[in-house]
Order: sequence, then C-alpha cells, then structure tokens
Amino acid sequence: MSYTPYNAPLLSGLLGDAEVTQHFTVRAEIAAMLRFEAALADAEACEDVIPRDAAEAIETACASFEPDIGAIGEATARDGVVVPELIRQLRAHVGEPHGKHVHFGSTSQDVIDTSFVLRMKGVVELLESRLMELRAALGDVETRFGGNEMMARTRMQAALPFAAANRIRGWNAPLGHHLDRLTALRPRVFALQCGGAIGTLDKLGGKGGAVSARLAKALGLRDPDRQWQTDRSGIADLAHWLSLVTGSLGKMGQDIALMAQNEIGEIKLSGGGGSSAMAHKQNPVKAETLVTLARFNAVQLSGIHQSMVHEQERSGAAWTLEWMLMPQMAVATGAALRTAAQLVSEIERIGAAG
Amino acid sequence: MSYTPYNAPLLSGLLGDAEVTQHFTVRAEIAAMLRFEAALADAEACEDVIPRDAAEAIETACASFEPDIGAIGEATARDGVVVPELIRQLRAHVGEPHGKHVHFGSTSQDVIDTSFVLRMKGVVELLESRLMELRAALGDVETRFGGNEMMARTRMQAALPFAAANRIRGWNAPLGHHLDRLTALRPRVFALQCGGAIGTLDKLGGKGGAVSARLAKALGLRDPDRQWQTDRSGIADLAHWLSLVTGSLGKMGQDIALMAQNEIGEIKLSGGGGSSAMAHKQNPVKAETLVTLARFNAVQLSGIHQSMVHEQERSGAAWTLEWMLMPQMAVATGAALRTAAQLVSEIERIGAAG
Amino acid sequence: MSYTPYNAPLLSGLLGDAEVTQHFTVRAEIAAMLRFEAALADAEACEDVIPRDAAEAIETACASFEPDIGAIGEATARDGVVVPELIRQLRAHVGEPHGKHVHFGSTSQDVIDTSFVLRMKGVVELLESRLMELRAALGDVETRFGGNEMMARTRMQAALPFAAANRIRGWNAPLGHHLDRLTALRPRVFALQCGGAIGTLDKLGGKGGAVSARLAKALGLRDPDRQWQTDRSGIADLAHWLSLVTGSLGKMGQDIALMAQNEIGEIKLSGGGGSSAMAHKQNPVKAETLVTLARFNAVQLSGIHQSMVHEQERSGAAWTLEWMLMPQMAVATGAALRTAAQLVSEIERIGAAG
Amino acid sequence: MSYTPYNAPLLSGLLGDAEVTQHFTVRAEIAAMLRFEAALADAEACEDVIPRDAAEAIETACASFEPDIGAIGEATARDGVVVPELIRQLRAHVGEPHGKHVHFGSTSQDVIDTSFVLRMKGVVELLESRLMELRAALGDVETRFGGNEMMARTRMQAALPFAAANRIRGWNAPLGHHLDRLTALRPRVFALQCGGAIGTLDKLGGKGGAVSARLAKALGLRDPDRQWQTDRSGIADLAHWLSLVTGSLGKMGQDIALMAQNEIGEIKLSGGGGSSAMAHKQNPVKAETLVTLARFNAVQLSGIHQSMVHEQERSGAAWTLEWMLMPQMAVATGAALRTAAQLVSEIERIGAAG
Repeated sequence: MSYTPYNAPLLSGLLGDAEVTQHFTVRAEIAAMLRFEAALADAEACEDVIPRDAAEAIETACASFEPDIGAIGEATARDGVVVPELIRQLRAHVGEPHGKHVHFGSTSQDVIDTSFVLRMKGVVELLESRLMELRAALGDVETRFGGNEMMARTRMQAALPFAAANRIRGWNAPLGHHLDRLTALRPRVFALQCGGAIGTLDKLGGKGGAVSARLAKALGLRDPDRQWQTDRSGIADLAHWLSLVTGSLGKMGQDIALMAQNEIGEIKLSGGGGSSAMAHKQNPVKAETLVTLARFNAVQLSGIHQSMVHEQERSGAAWTLEWMLMPQMAVATGAALRTAAQLVSEIERIGAAG
Repeated sequence: MSYTPYNAPLLSGLLGDAEVTQHFTVRAEIAAMLRFEAALADAEACEDVIPRDAAEAIETACASFEPDIGAIGEATARDGVVVPELIRQLRAHVGEPHGKHVHFGSTSQDVIDTSFVLRMKGVVELLESRLMELRAALGDVETRFGGNEMMARTRMQAALPFAAANRIRGWNAPLGHHLDRLTALRPRVFALQCGGAIGTLDKLGGKGGAVSARLAKALGLRDPDRQWQTDRSGIADLAHWLSLVTGSLGKMGQDIALMAQNEIGEIKLSGGGGSSAMAHKQNPVKAETLVTLARFNAVQLSGIHQSMVHEQERSGAAWTLEWMLMPQMAVATGAALRTAAQLVSEIERIGAAG
Repeated sequence: MSYTPYNAPLLSGLLGDAEVTQHFTVRAEIAAMLRFEAALADAEACEDVIPRDAAEAIETACASFEPDIGAIGEATARDGVVVPELIRQLRAHVGEPHGKHVHFGSTSQDVIDTSFVLRMKGVVELLESRLMELRAALGDVETRFGGNEMMARTRMQAALPFAAANRIRGWNAPLGHHLDRLTALRPRVFALQCGGAIGTLDKLGGKGGAVSARLAKALGLRDPDRQWQTDRSGIADLAHWLSLVTGSLGKMGQDIALMAQNEIGEIKLSGGGGSSAMAHKQNPVKAETLVTLARFNAVQLSGIHQSMVHEQERSGAAWTLEWMLMPQMAVATGAALRTAAQLVSEIERIGAAG
Repeated sequence: MSYTPYNAPLLSGLLGDAEVTQHFTVRAEIAAMLRFEAALADAEACEDVIPRDAAEAIETACASFEPDIGAIGEATARDGVVVPELIRQLRAHVGEPHGKHVHFGSTSQDVIDTSFVLRMKGVVELLESRLMELRAALGDVETRFGGNEMMARTRMQAALPFAAANRIRGWNAPLGHHLDRLTALRPRVFALQCGGAIGTLDKLGGKGGAVSARLAKALGLRDPDRQWQTDRSGIADLAHWLSLVTGSLGKMGQDIALMAQNEIGEIKLSGGGGSSAMAHKQNPVKAETLVTLARFNAVQLSGIHQSMVHEQERSGAAWTLEWMLMPQMAVATGAALRTAAQLVSEIERIGAAG
C-alpha cells in the first residue's frame, strides 16, 4: 500500500484532508501567485514605479489568465521553480506594451513564499476552527462522562482511580494552549515576502519600503522589517505548531487505543474498523491513525529545521526541501483534526458509571 | 509552492519520477493485490485447502475484476486498510458458490505487504539499472576529464591539486557498493508475507508451510522461515538502502554545486536553470535538487525506524506510518537517479585541461 | 573519535559548553531537587498540610544533605527515576518524626520536571545574554565592514553585488527575533510541575491549588492552570527554540565557510584550525562546527516531538527519551553561541573595501 | 533530570553501558590512535618509506606515551580534530631524528576513522555475544512458557488465542537475522581508513597500496579498494544495524509493557521499579526503557544519513556530526541489550498455564 500523488483515491479518506488539500491544488497555487502579481503591480503603480495603466492591464490579465500547466511543469524541471515560466506566460498574456512591467523588481521567492503564506493562512484558519470545535466536543464528552470513575495509569500500570474528567481535560487543555499559541504565531508566519533578486528590492530604488507596505496591506499580511528569504524561522514556527497539534492528538489517540483494549474497556466506541480475517473485531483505527500522524509530523519537522541552514541569499537545496515537507505536514494536521473529531463523536462511554 | 497529491503537474518533473510512480498507482496496487489473491487460491487448491474449481473461478475473476475504488476509499477511512472492502467486492464478483474461498486463511497484512514487496521489486530493478547506467556515464566522464587537474578541497579549503579522476571516482565508487549491497538486500526484502490473522496461518491447518512455499514461488518471492508481520527489519533495510543511494548522490550534487561557483569554475554544465529576476544566471538546479532529495530521505528514514516499535501481532499505528513514508522514499530515490543522470550528461568539463 | 560521558576532555572545547553543562551536573540536579522538596515542605506547612516544625526540619536537612550518589545510581537502574531512592535517603537524613513528611503528596515527575525547568531557566538566561552579546558583536562587524561591497549569491551562483551589511543583517536579525520569542516562551516553559501521583494532587485534599501557588512563587516559576505531566508542549517549545537558535547560527556558519573559500575570499578570519597533514591550511573550523550543531539539534528535535505521544498519566518511555535529548540540545546551543561569538571576534574583514 | 558528560553517576545504570563505554574513553581512543601510528610506521618501514629505526623508535614511543590531554582538548577547540596536537606531542616524545617520521603521509581522518573502526569492532563483538546470549535466554523462555496460551492481539484488540511461543519467537527471530546481517556488515564497516591529506596517499609515491595492505593486516581490518573519507556508507550501515537491534528490542519492550498491564497480566515479572508516590506499584521500567532506546536510535540515525552529504574531500561539518551521534548510538544499543537481558531474566511467567 502507499500514499502517493496517484493513489489518493484509496488512502485520502484515512490519511488525507480534502479541505486542507484544496489550498495546495495547482489551481489554488496559481491563483495565489497571480494575486501576488496583481497586487504587486497595483502597489508599484501607486508608488509610480510602473505606469498605472500597466498595473490595470496586469490586474485584468491576472483575472482571466489560464496558464499552460504542462509547460510550467517542464520548465520547472529545469529552473527549479515555477515562476520564470509562469511569468513568461503571463507577460505574453498581458502583451505589449505592459507585459514587461509584470513581476517588476520581484523574484521567484517573493511569489512562492508569499503564495505559500497566503494559503497557509487559510489552512490555519481552518485548523483553528476545527480545534475550537474539537474542544467543544471534548467539553461535551467531559460533561457526559467526566464524573465516571476510571483508573489513572502511570508507566503502563494502574495507579489510582480518578474521575474520567481528569483524563479528558488532559486531552483538551493542550488544544487550548495550541489555540493560544496562534496569537504569537500569526504575525511571525503570515508576513509578506518581498525582497527581489537579492533581498534588497534593488530595482525599486528608494520605493521598496513603500511598495512592500502597500502590498502587505493589500494581501492581508504583516509587512516585516525585512524580507525573510534566508530566515526560515517563521516556517519552522509553523511546522512546530502543526506538530504540536498532531502530537497532542497522538497522545489522545494512544490513550484511546489503550482504553479500548478488551480487558480494559474504559472506553466504548461506535464505528470501529473491520478486519478482513476476523469479523468479530472492532479496531480503534482512528485512534491508531492519530498516533501515526503524530509520528509523521515529528519526523518531518526535523527536515524543516535542517532547512534553516539556508546558505547565502537563497538556497535552492534548503528551500526545495521545505516544499516537500510543509504541505504534507499541513495535510497531516488537517487529517488528524478531522479524524479526532470523528473519533470523539464516536465515544459512547468513558470510564464506568458510578 | 507545494508538492501534494493534487499538484503533481507542477513539481513532478523536478521532484517526482514517472516510472517509479507507476508502481504506486491505484491500478498497480490493485493489480498486485489481485495477483496475490489469485496465486493464493491456486496454491491453496494445489494443497486441497480450497476446491480447484473455486481457485479457477477466483483466478478468472481476478483477471476481469474492476473494483469500485470510491467505495474502497470510503471503507478504508473506517477500516484502516483497503483489503476488507476489496475482498468483499471481489467475493461478490466471484459470486456463489466460490466467493467464500477468496482470501481464505489470509489477512489484510498479507495482501498489503506482499503487494508492496512485489512492486518494490520492480522499483529496485529500475533503480538498479539506473545505477548501472549512471556508473557507466560517470566512467565516461572520468575518461574524458579524469586527467584534468583540479583542486582537492578539505574542510572547505583548497588542499592540494589532484587529477579530477579522484573526485569523479569518489562519486562513482559508492554507487558500485550500493549495487553490491543488493545481493544481501534482495532476499531480506523480497519475501512473501503470509501469516493469516495472527501470523500462524491457523486456518490452513498443517498446510500453511506448503501453501506459503507454493505462493512464494508463484510470485517470485523468497519463502521466509516465518512471516514478518511484526518484524519490519526488511522494510528498514530497504529504506536504508534508498537513503544510501540518495545520500551518495547528494554528496555528488553538493560537490557539483560547489564546483560550479563562479569563482571556482571547476565544472562547466549545460542546461542550468533560469531565474525570474536575473537573466544572466545559470543555476545548478539539478545539483541542488540532489542535496534536497538526500536530506529528504535522511529525514524519512527516521520514521521507518520508529515504525519498528510494532506492538503485538499487528500495529495499525506503526504500519500505517510505513505507508506514508516508503513510497515517497522510493520516488525520491528515483527522482535523484533521474536527476543525476541528466546532470552528469550536462557536464561539459571538469577541472582544467593540462 | 567520539563524544561520550567519558571523553569530554578531548571534545568539550569544540562541542561542549562549560557554563551550560554546570546546570546539568549531578550537583546542580540534586540541588534543584532539594530546593523543590524544601519549598514544597514550606508551602505545605503554610497551608497546614504538614506541621511547621516538620517543614523546618526538612528545610534544614536539605541544606546539609549529601546524598549517596552511588546508591541513587543503582536504584535508578531499577526504578527508572532517581527520586524514590533520593527521597528514601532524605527521609532517613531528616529522621523521625519528620521524615515521613518529606515529599508529601508529590511524585517523582514533580521533582524531576521542576528541577529541569529551574535549571533550564538559568540556561536560557545564559543563552539570552550570549545572544545579546552576539547581536552587539555583529552590529559592530556591520559598522566596520557593512559598507564594503560583496557579491550576493543565490542558488550558489553570483547574483549581484551588494553592501556587506545586507549579509550581516541577515545573520543578526533572526537572533533578535529569537530573543523576542522568549517573551512568549518563558511563561510556557518555566512553569511549576506539581500534580502528585496521578496529576490531581489527591493527597492534598482541597489545598492542592494553594500549595501549588505558594510553591511556584517560592521557586520563581509560573503556577500553571493544571500540571503538565502529560502535556509536553512546553518542553517541545523549548526544544524548538533551541533549534531555531542553532539553525540561524548554522546558516551563518555555512555562509562564512563559503565566504572563506580560497577563490572567494569574502571574509578574512584569524584563528583558523590547523591540519595534521597540510601546514599551509587555515580551516574555518568554527564555521563548520556551527553547521554541525545546527544539524544535531534539528535531528534531536524530532525525538522531542515523538515524546509528545505520552500515554496515560505518565509515560516512562516518552519521558525518559526527553532526558536523553534535552540536555544535549541545551549544551549544543550553548556551544553554538560560544563558538559563534569566537568566530565573529575573529572576523578581520568582510567583503572588499571600496 | 538529564544525561550529560557530567551526571553519568545518576543515569548510566539506566541508560548507559559500562562495557561499551570503555571503548569510548579518552584512554581507549588515544590507545587506538597510537596503535594506528605505530602500525603505520612499521608498514612504512617495511616498504622503505621511512627508516626502520624510525619505525622502531615510534613504536617504542607509542608504547610509553602519555599525552597531555588538557593541551589536546584546547587545541581541538581550534583545530576541530585532536590529531594535530596529538601528533605534535608524539613527535616531541619520539624526539629527533625520528620524530619527523611520525604520521608520515597520513592525515587526521585516517587516524580518527581507523581508531573509531577499531573500537567499534570491539563494540560489535560485544553486542554480538550479547545478542547470542539473549537469543539463548529467549529460547529458554520459550521452552518454559511457549506452550502456555495467550491472546494474540492485532491493532490493539484481542484477535485469537495462540501459544505464547509465537509471541516469543516474534521477539527472538529478528535478533537472529541481525546476527546474520553481521556477515555482510563486517567487511563494509571494519575497513582501514588510509588516504592521506586528500585521499590519494600522495606522499607515499607508488607505495600507498602496499603500505595500506600491510597496515590493514596489522590492524585486523579489511584493506578497501580505496579510502572512504567521503563515502560514509559504511558508517551509515553500522548506524542502521544498531538501530535495527534497538528497534527489535523496543518492539519486545513495548509488548512486555502491554502484557504487564494489570488487567492483562500476560506476563509476570520480578524486579519492577518502585514509585516515590505509590508503594503498591511495580513499574515495567526495563520494558519502557527499551522503547526509549529504540526511539532514541531511530532519531539519531537520521543525522548519520544527513552526514552522507559530505562535500569535497573532507567535510568538517558532516564528519563532526558523526562523532556526536555514533558513540551514543553504540552505547544506547549496549544499554538496550543489557536491559533486555535483565528483563528477560526477570520473566516468571508468560501466558496462562493450560
């Protein structure tokens, strides 16, 4: 079995997340890039860096542009980034005399990083709302079963009995802290990338700061003190947060799988998974999946931190590694929250009624 | 930017591998599973475990069976594995009275692990042939440029001049060792999985060994002493080997990126990547990509070793993590070999002619 | 070569940090544990949980107590934690009738986690002051050489010339952000652990909250809403921060190693490392070491996130893994900051004077 | 709590291994290096590269040499390797006229890599003998309890009853395969490193091959086709093997911790760990520790594979990372085997007598 770009039909219900994935489709990616280019042109026109009618032509063109994806894929194998060919096509689509003003003073990394951040903003909003719903659902579980008695267990041994509420709060409270963490995280992560070829916006003369400020505002992003082309801390913060979320859900999943053991029976679940060999079994598949996804993100996070060794003004090697890891971490987090919500909804009892 | 099940059109030319991926399509996966079921039925009929006409009906059915993939995907979200629903459909397709003999005595893990191994056998053959071609290409590069002088460098400092052949052999020799490693690797990895529900083939009575032997032979796999449902060492061996290959290619990529620095100029490459901001640049994209892919596999390998903590007779959590990592490692290795072959073909000079 | 508990004399100058390590000595560890026990007794006496004279006897005993370390080591091999034997010895040292009040209502994890946090507080203060000094030193480097011209480089290729200040600020600015991150980090990490056997402080009756509040205040820690025995997010936040710091320094180290290449010569360093074979070489050892330490922490971080899957009320397996990783990450971060300070002090020139 | 070079007294009984660590002491390290230097001198004298009386003087000096460790530690902070200062001291100890022949034609990496390999040979012998003893002990456990019935469990749910022998063989069989793996592993790993400054033994003229052959034979190592200064596959093979061993033991540990749950009671152990808060508990500390050590090595392995990106003729950054990881992996593996042996000896029952 496997999970690849080509077998999603089989495994995406288990390990994927349709809503999160929508932010990583070709369509979403191109749309975010064009949004950047259109807003850049407008900001540059406002600052008299490019003509106003060029900006209008670019904005109009972006709205109707349907790029040749196949040609971009081919060029990317050579260029390492989609932007050069995308811009070439967009310039042709804009036509003369305004095409040359497309992407003026910018660089591939501005487009790609900003496009990623714009989409991750939507992903984080989605994850946030799921976290809030999950907290409410766990609160409801606590209301229903929190007064039941169950065994507290330490080091895999029965310790002392306690109210089930203690265990349930142990799952719920960290999710609240993860929501709290978003306050500090958002401004770090959701920041415009705009540095131009070497991070200095050299082609914009003295207007780089003003263009950046306008562009950030138009895109709903923070205007950072300086570009973060080589400072990948914000990406790492985001990856860390994603892995915190899946880690806490993995802890809950591990607990539930242990509680669901036949001789323990501290939880009753509807909707367990069937077996091809043993019809009598009800497997706690969703609980196990939460452990899988937690370990998956814990693994990927290491690669994001390796990518912080981002040499000089742009590292193709380190940057490309982020692309291979971040979307997967986001999807895994979405899958974990989706799975956790289903699992919690299937809880029919925790502990033993008094 | 991102690389997900839905945006392959943009990035698969850079980071994917069409040939390797063919082994991980839904079609290839289902085909390998049906191959297992058909061969199992035949082996069981030979040992009088199921009727001969049942085996023939199953084999015939497997040849024409077109499963409802959507239904499998939905069921997998619940069951954690595709097999229960696949078998349910296959039994219906076989019809009465033979349908009940489908998958007799087997379990999901037998089907999935064996299907994976069958496909990885094809992948490793492909990678092996690419390794041999790459070795030949590097041998040719050595013939052409090995006599040129270049600077040996240690700890990022010029050390002493030497013949370029030394550097080139340093890339080529490890690839030969990786080929040699296949001799020990193949029997470990390409082994039948056949244990039934709890690893004992309990439903086959005393005929488990004989059925396994026939089945292994029919599928071209080794018949292991015992099933490896919980011993994931072979999977880990394979992952390690994949990461050795990408690691050695990453070393070559890092070297080439360093040699291609403007002031160093120890290598001349055709076909560098273009920039959206600086038309004069020729970026050593393929060399960088080799570093990316090496670091990617080095990260994933950690997860495969985490999966060795595979509790009891089957760990849903640990096993599922393998599915998320192994196909990606295989594709990354294919991409690295493909990229390395292109990169080596673009070498126009190494070192300085005497 | 190797770096183990027994060969520190050879490698600690390169990879260790004497000041950070002081927080992880047996002496420091025991001292922090005794500080916890003494403060706990006082807090419990204030709330009439234990007699006041018992608290005084315990505080006095803690001040003079010299535990039998050998016996603790032996017991730890059996108990998995040092606390049971330490408490047994401390109770004997306190003697009757007050000995039985030692550690009342608490558990090993309270002592160990709080002791760790207390010492990490000192470590983070140290790292913070080094970060500030390093920022000042880099500011000075910018003042001296920032106006020099050097080549901006992207994807390992010369891009465009720019002022060296741009490169230097690219090293310095992230360090400022890491300092800023401490504001949110500190209250998360530097929180009292006080939950008792199963996280409920069950033995303290209704006085658990009041005892915790007093204890936290006495120890200079935050009094959290609830214990964090199974929520390891704060530990993970700390590990992430340590790896952010080493990651940014690793980026600087990689840059400097590249700048120091003979043909590039964009930096002039005093104090390079000697070779046993080539007397003419000056190796950028400190720059390389920064890369090593960055990659080391990026690796370890993965294990800390694996540890978030902390089952039930206390996981021996997950918790012990933290012990193996966190002190090393702290020491590696100390070593990186120490090394970076030395390296920056050895910069004699960056770029070329106009 | 923590495990650092300075607190071994507390945690080495739990997480360390005295016998393995002996191979990583300063004394052992220096001894192996001097063994290399003495054998090199002898081999060079045999091939008339240096005078015979120089070789004799060097061999004599090596036998009595007591280096100034403090000075080596200080120099290592500058040089990045211990060898330059060690050789300086050794040359002074040999004195004139022979001192200049010490280390002739060799380089730091030859000494350090070969010293590491020599000591790892001893470590692997030790681990091998422990593996064999553990297999015998598990065989005995199978003899005693293999006929008892217990529940086979898949996906954390009771599946079907089976004989305990099945579970026990599932622990034992992989250890046998790990022993088998040593046959292919040994020649890959236990190979002489001898390449000189840039891997070509340039100073030895045409006699490099002959000197290497003699040296390898004298040290009991394989004489490889070429040096492996930049091909770290053998180190990675070794790290992979260590992590396979701990992975299989971690699986056993996880199983035992699950079997020891109060309501399950499928195993009876003597010697569980005590709690500071709950005198009635017997914690399966050794079983948990096996999980910890498995996850630890799975984490470290990632760093070893990162180190394969070993640029040019010697990468200070990548090589130094190996030093930080390999000895720890070896010690963790020793600790796991030691712990597993104790744990297995404490098994008083598995399953239920019929």
